Amino acid sequence: MASGAVSRTAPIFQLGKCLAVPMQLHVANRQRLCNRIRDKISSLDTSKSLTHNLSGVFVVLQGGTDTFLGDSDAANVFRQESFFHWTFGVLEPDCYGTIEVATGRSTLFIPKIPEEATIYDGELASLEQFSKKYNVDETHYTDEIASYLSLWNATLLLTLCGVNTDSHRPTPEAKFYGIERFQVNRDILHHEIVSCRLIKTDMELDVIRYTNRISSAAHRHLMRSIKPGMYQYQAESIFRHYCYFHGGMRHMSYTCIAATGCDCAVLHYGHAGKPNEHQILDGEMCLFDMGGEYYCYSSDITCSFPVNGRFTDDQKLIYNAVLCASRAVLNEIKPGADWVQLHQLAEREILTHLREGGLLLGDINEMMKSRLGAIFMPHGLGHLLGCDVHDVGGYLNDTPSRSSQPGLKNLRTARLLQTNMVMTVEPGCYFIERLLNQALSSDILSKFIDRGQIERFRKFGGVRIEDNIIVTETGYELLTDVPRTIEEIEAWMSSKSECNGHIYE
Amino acid sequence: MASGAVSRTAPIFQLGKCLAVPMQLHVANRQRLCNRIRDKISSLDTSKSLTHNLSGVFVVLQGGTDTFLGDSDAANVFRQESFFHWTFGVLEPDCYGTIEVATGRSTLFIPKIPEEATIYDGELASLEQFSKKYNVDETHYTDEIASYLSLWNATLLLTLCGVNTDSHRPTPEAKFYGIERFQVNRDILHHEIVSCRLIKTDMELDVIRYTNRISSAAHRHLMRSIKPGMYQYQAESIFRHYCYFHGGMRHMSYTCIAATGCDCAVLHYGHAGKPNEHQILDGEMCLFDMGGEYYCYSSDITCSFPVNGRFTDDQKLIYNAVLCASRAVLNEIKPGADWVQLHQLAEREILTHLREGGLLLGDINEMMKSRLGAIFMPHGLGHLLGCDVHDVGGYLNDTPSRSSQPGLKNLRTARLLQTNMVMTVEPGCYFIERLLNQALSSDILSKFIDRGQIERFRKFGGVRIEDNIIVTETGYELLTDVPRTIEEIEAWMSSKSECNGHIYE
Repeated sequence: MASGAVSRTAPIFQLGKCLAVPMQLHVANRQRLCNRIRDKISSLDTSKSLTHNLSGVFVVLQGGTDTFLGDSDAANVFRQESFFHWTFGVLEPDCYGTIEVATGRSTLFIPKIPEEATIYDGELASLEQFSKKYNVDETHYTDEIASYLSLWNATLLLTLCGVNTDSHRPTPEAKFYGIERFQVNRDILHHEIVSCRLIKTDMELDVIRYTNRISSAAHRHLMRSIKPGMYQYQAESIFRHYCYFHGGMRHMSYTCIAATGCDCAVLHYGHAGKPNEHQILDGEMCLFDMGGEYYCYSSDITCSFPVNGRFTDDQKLIYNAVLCASRAVLNEIKPGADWVQLHQLAEREILTHLREGGLLLGDINEMMKSRLGAIFMPHGLGHLLGCDVHDVGGYLNDTPSRSSQPGLKNLRTARLLQTNMVMTVEPGCYFIERLLNQALSSDILSKFIDRGQIERFRKFGGVRIEDNIIVTETGYELLTDVPRTIEEIEAWMSSKSECNGHIYE
Repeated sequence: MASGAVSRTAPIFQLGKCLAVPMQLHVANRQRLCNRIRDKISSLDTSKSLTHNLSGVFVVLQGGTDTFLGDSDAANVFRQESFFHWTFGVLEPDCYGTIEVATGRSTLFIPKIPEEATIYDGELASLEQFSKKYNVDETHYTDEIASYLSLWNATLLLTLCGVNTDSHRPTPEAKFYGIERFQVNRDILHHEIVSCRLIKTDMELDVIRYTNRISSAAHRHLMRSIKPGMYQYQAESIFRHYCYFHGGMRHMSYTCIAATGCDCAVLHYGHAGKPNEHQILDGEMCLFDMGGEYYCYSSDITCSFPVNGRFTDDQKLIYNAVLCASRAVLNEIKPGADWVQLHQLAEREILTHLREGGLLLGDINEMMKSRLGAIFMPHGLGHLLGCDVHDVGGYLNDTPSRSSQPGLKNLRTARLLQTNMVMTVEPGCYFIERLLNQALSSDILSKFIDRGQIERFRKFGGVRIEDNIIVTETGYELLTDVPRTIEEIEAWMSSKSECNGHIYE
């Protein structure tokens, strides 16, 4: 599915001079979805009460709604729900969308805005303008959805019903007044739409390339802006500003992790309870895990480096352990590669380097068998990336299931890679008090650890190196563009800073 | 209630080198609340089944919880629910708090975090650390709340039940497993806590002074950074970055309104449907309504100015109409002043200037009687400010009720001012297509309008000037510090820019 050149008159999303995204992206997504559903329904046995006749079958999705702080009228800046965005690309809250599976005819349903509200929020586009803006066949008001489905002789509505395997929370299912008049099937849509979202089109890949380009530039900028004595939250602010000012990224893909020193051992540092509040001290490592999103497509990049721009020997040891793991994994990325095996490959590289550095003792195969790797890298190697930063499709009923072993159980997918999947590759090595103590008090694990050496790393924190890649037919395309080797990082951080004022020009 | 000097060992909230806020602020709030509730209960007739005996009466509040995007695990950065913040100042989600009314004894209940989660989110502080951090008497786990209330012989729980008069949404009421064992009163707490929140303590005022200081500096910085050709969202990004980097303001008090040109006529421009997306053209007015928050206290400031730094005659006319309205209102601010009358004073000033400028014809008193002012200023003069940007307490059962007249019905309060209320004063003058057409087709209103003159302003947009003030015993304290007169604005914008790089140093 080639994106081709975007015609000047074809509808696009674009903020400022940032990337122009053709609405054709969503037309293609809807076509793919209809094709899959048609194949699925055709394959079903008629005895299961689903007719081979597709006429009257409609996909029905409900978009996201505004969320407010407590009882107040302070709304969070709205960001569309991801399934709805993938299918329709609509920026506004409180919409519905339908697709007639047989024909692909797409319809949006938008809320009626009270006249009083238009004074505060501005005039809403007309129905015709909506259809044109989002490249759908027609647009009506949400209070007419049941009437129109009746008019179109809808006989079966496909709604979303499933559980997100990262959050363990249910997918948002469409509900509307009058839905009880129709037969509803909740078993088909989730699997088919998730399977579509799993494999990105060229048009989607262009957006993800862009989010990586901007977020990479923001990381490079931040590496040259950060100085000992600054606070972690200031690093977050610099990153967010770069992404928004230069890249039109109003939202981050996830809460910025601006960890330094010991805090690098907290995998998801930066939330309200650990709000990037510490001062950054000379000699500490930074672990900046931050990514902006554009038009609801994510990026997810981690850079680890010493705040003063020069690695110590211990920092080099841990950093190179992780970098070698990253590079070993990347070398093996191709269609058919087994994600669980790649995770283990990363573990093996890290354990090998830690043994070479004198922290560990004994046989690597035995360490692997006893799951020592999960002490130093308790999270999974990486995850799918798309409209969600932990994108859907990690585990479905027809994919390899989740392991129950330490470390492996935290993998967000156990799939074999396929062309045009987008993945993060993010090995890490951490010195986490709780896990170290567990290992040291374990008969099985403690024998691998040199107690004298490991004490030196108690306050080290950790290192993570995270790149985003596209699986290609022959290997992978690296989307992330930041200094990675120790030499590259030291050179980048020591060379003359860009004019700090640059970002205002 | 004087704040006094903060002891070095007394618990505080502080981000970086930003304002240190003593937890004593919340101790004082809880004391005030208990005093009011004791007075209230004592005043109740015993026949109403509430005993004069306060023993066993507890306030029970439930804090906010994390919110997620759709079915995903991407959480919004948590910001505490405002009633809970006012009472306890707790940064973390999923907590409860109780106060024994007779003694003031305060207890926090915090969630137990599964061991697996501590690897991702970090170790939670111990119960003792929590008590110390937030200056409460004790801390337990949330699954023990019913047991502890039983242990303490709780006989009556006061929970929050009310409706926010800005959002028309219900206050979040505490619910927990086992609450059915207790008698619950939902009638008392809301009125008393809202009445407390209405009047700020000196410690609260210090925080609001700070939020205004930082947001004012961000506005001044933005006025010198913005240039024709830039995009509105870039203005938002500059403002947000300044507030966070320099002021520790991770959250904005509300969605940034970075309106320019015609968009200035959309009162709440900037939401997802109108996402500050336009290019700023030479000659246009900017209307930047933005405010940061610190430790859940708000600011709310609007600056209107020409993007190129020089007012045209038409821009001067409208700007001075609004500035004179603002200054006329400020002159009248003091305890006992009637907010509805002040709104009308602002209208009268604006109408007078528009008549002097040749846009309107006829008698000002007649214009006022026919509510012409609501065509040009459809929103209220201003609102209470505190933990919510539209703070609670605008309308209660014992305050003047909401008017049904155009313009006046949009006032967020109709109160008489009291010492230590914090208010926004934000008159505006807009040329809103829908309202102008209404006026021109109205027999009553059209006779006041010079159709020839008004056409020149069809695409003008609008002007709003918004300051935050504290009502003092003798008048008011102006918190906002930005250039306001035409001369001040032109001088500020023409003088040599600060080094753009400044904010990274």
